[in-house]
Amino acid sequence: MMKRYLLTPGPTAIPPEVALKEALPILHHRTVEFATIYKDVAEGLKYVFQTKNEVYTLAASGTGAMEMAVVNILSPGDEVIVASCGNFGDRWIKIAEEYGVKVISVSVEWGKVVKPEEIGKVLKSNSNIKAVYTTFTETSTGVANDIKSIGEIVSRTNAVLVVDAISGLAGQEFRTDNWKVDVVVSCSQKGFMLAPGLAFITLSDKAWKLAETSKIPKFYFDLKKYKKSHAINETPFTPPVTLIAALQESIRLIKERGLENMWNDYKILAKATRAGMKALGLDLFGEVPCEVVTSASVPVEIGGEIVKTLREKYGVSIAGGQGDLEGKIIRFAHMGYIGKADLLVGFACLEMVLSELGVKIEKGKAVAAAEEELLKA
Amino acid sequence: MMKRYLLTPGPTAIPPEVALKEALPILHHRTVEFATIYKDVAEGLKYVFQTKNEVYTLAASGTGAMEMAVVNILSPGDEVIVASCGNFGDRWIKIAEEYGVKVISVSVEWGKVVKPEEIGKVLKSNSNIKAVYTTFTETSTGVANDIKSIGEIVSRTNAVLVVDAISGLAGQEFRTDNWKVDVVVSCSQKGFMLAPGLAFITLSDKAWKLAETSKIPKFYFDLKKYKKSHAINETPFTPPVTLIAALQESIRLIKERGLENMWNDYKILAKATRAGMKALGLDLFGEVPCEVVTSASVPVEIGGEIVKTLREKYGVSIAGGQGDLEGKIIRFAHMGYIGKADLLVGFACLEMVLSELGVKIEKGKAVAAAEEELLKA
Repeated sequence: MMKRYLLTPGPTAIPPEVALKEALPILHHRTVEFATIYKDVAEGLKYVFQTKNEVYTLAASGTGAMEMAVVNILSPGDEVIVASCGNFGDRWIKIAEEYGVKVISVSVEWGKVVKPEEIGKVLKSNSNIKAVYTTFTETSTGVANDIKSIGEIVSRTNAVLVVDAISGLAGQEFRTDNWKVDVVVSCSQKGFMLAPGLAFITLSDKAWKLAETSKIPKFYFDLKKYKKSHAINETPFTPPVTLIAALQESIRLIKERGLENMWNDYKILAKATRAGMKALGLDLFGEVPCEVVTSASVPVEIGGEIVKTLREKYGVSIAGGQGDLEGKIIRFAHMGYIGKADLLVGFACLEMVLSELGVKIEKGKAVAAAEEELLKA
Repeated sequence: MMKRYLLTPGPTAIPPEVALKEALPILHHRTVEFATIYKDVAEGLKYVFQTKNEVYTLAASGTGAMEMAVVNILSPGDEVIVASCGNFGDRWIKIAEEYGVKVISVSVEWGKVVKPEEIGKVLKSNSNIKAVYTTFTETSTGVANDIKSIGEIVSRTNAVLVVDAISGLAGQEFRTDNWKVDVVVSCSQKGFMLAPGLAFITLSDKAWKLAETSKIPKFYFDLKKYKKSHAINETPFTPPVTLIAALQESIRLIKERGLENMWNDYKILAKATRAGMKALGLDLFGEVPCEVVTSASVPVEIGGEIVKTLREKYGVSIAGGQGDLEGKIIRFAHMGYIGKADLLVGFACLEMVLSELGVKIEKGKAVAAAEEELLKA
């Protein structure tokens, strides 16, 4: 019975119009009716990804699409750069190494952003490198990497640039083609304002060329199967038809609002969140904060308690830290289906929880600071 | 606006109670609330699979779980038997060969059922065989294999028995533990009366032992990750939370009705369907018809037209033949959320369509024959 507020970096709350589509009767996937929806969704995905290339959809968590981006373009023994700055960047290393790929890590400390010039240096010194893997918005720490600059550097080499845009897409400016990104992966439960269950991937011609020589075995994740079916508005395996029908609705909403407007909306929410955190005396965590989630350092002894109490007492879900950051940071997400008022709810409850946990704060101050930023916009 | 009737072998129609759960607000997956649902679902899955072992859930089409059943227990160069009798059995061959596994095929002609004694012979002549892969109900042809006898034979050897029960589970008697099946895969959109998007897999101790030495690389499909998370009622990657909430409801309905009762219900529907087909003068296809889908031969020149006209004119979706059987058979499914009346709708419309296509039939005869069987039960 407790009313819940989702301020987590995925899954996010979703619009009721989208949720209801999930409850409509099942459509068979080999019919003209479903093909029409699939085609519309495929066109819409190109808009959200800002690409002229096809975007493929499959039943998987986002990690499934990440694996696709490894097993389809590489062969065992290949050398790649992974530029990681957090938990999700590190996942690229784990996947690549599992498949016998040699990883040259140009990772940075969690909280920092990856350095495009470091990637450039390694690329210059090693012409064998097949691909550069990195993360757009690293939700484990709350930073955004400069994908545009990385794209500029990688595009001048034979390597392809592969970006995990799982949490940032549709939340913060991202332009696949303009920024010269070759492979982009994402999934349904973040910026798409949809339930988890769908993963997406798009490839440039340069990446497809690599795909032709890939020697890593694959079956379910074999992109050639998806490409072939996609051409006739189908998927090689039974797709999650209700989620795809709901995706059609969420893409309709995204188009209606316009990507640029959405990016701006989240930018404002991010500013307000940062102002609220500062007003509470919490230090922002992360060198270049992204616009879909805000991280702040909290006293280590109460990090876990804040998250737990917010959820259990007020129904507000935020995230704590992962890995080494466990207990040390809290993360407020402003992605997906979230309004200005939701943020204020989050801060008001956070104020109450911090007071209860004995942190000296002035009640109303974080809310006021956030309001200030929202009014400015 | 056209009212639709789904008589396809997956996805099937789903109960409105289940569909509505998909539309409920998103729950975060790392919370007590979700863990409670997950735990309940995990217990329920054991009941449906009829096993004391854990059943793992992931975001994937059924084929994803099939791939899991290959990459987790084998190594390149391993020898396995595949006993195929149709399109889905052949998929085992394709997956295994992709991963460098040597396949000894004891496949039979489509429409026939696999021969347990043939499997026994090959096992006797080759003690290197690691696993036997087969299919419970082969929906491409409409037959059911004798898994119990195969389990008896394989269990006396070092090999494990892996069964694709995707379309048959919860529709026709299947007992994982009693029948000595080591690995069973299934998914959400058939007997579970749920939308597509979830795949399931369970392993015996004998299969887990093989898993310890498996050398095929895997990341998203790595069962050890699922086992570890499962122990704390979590999944390694963000799960499709709305589908899992809906699964809780569908399992509740299955428990309420009781598996034995459900098996009996579908048996009656299968009998009625076979009677209806015969009354239309159509020959039943398949040596041992299964109880979740009925195949009948139709004049080749109109096979495709029957399926198309039923759908376009009356909103009734049935399936045609796959592969070599394209245009040669029609398939009426009686799985998932289907009532006696739905079958009668199917036959009444089929009578109209056959008449329109110039086939000489007596209108009402198929419906009458089906009614007769339904009344007998």
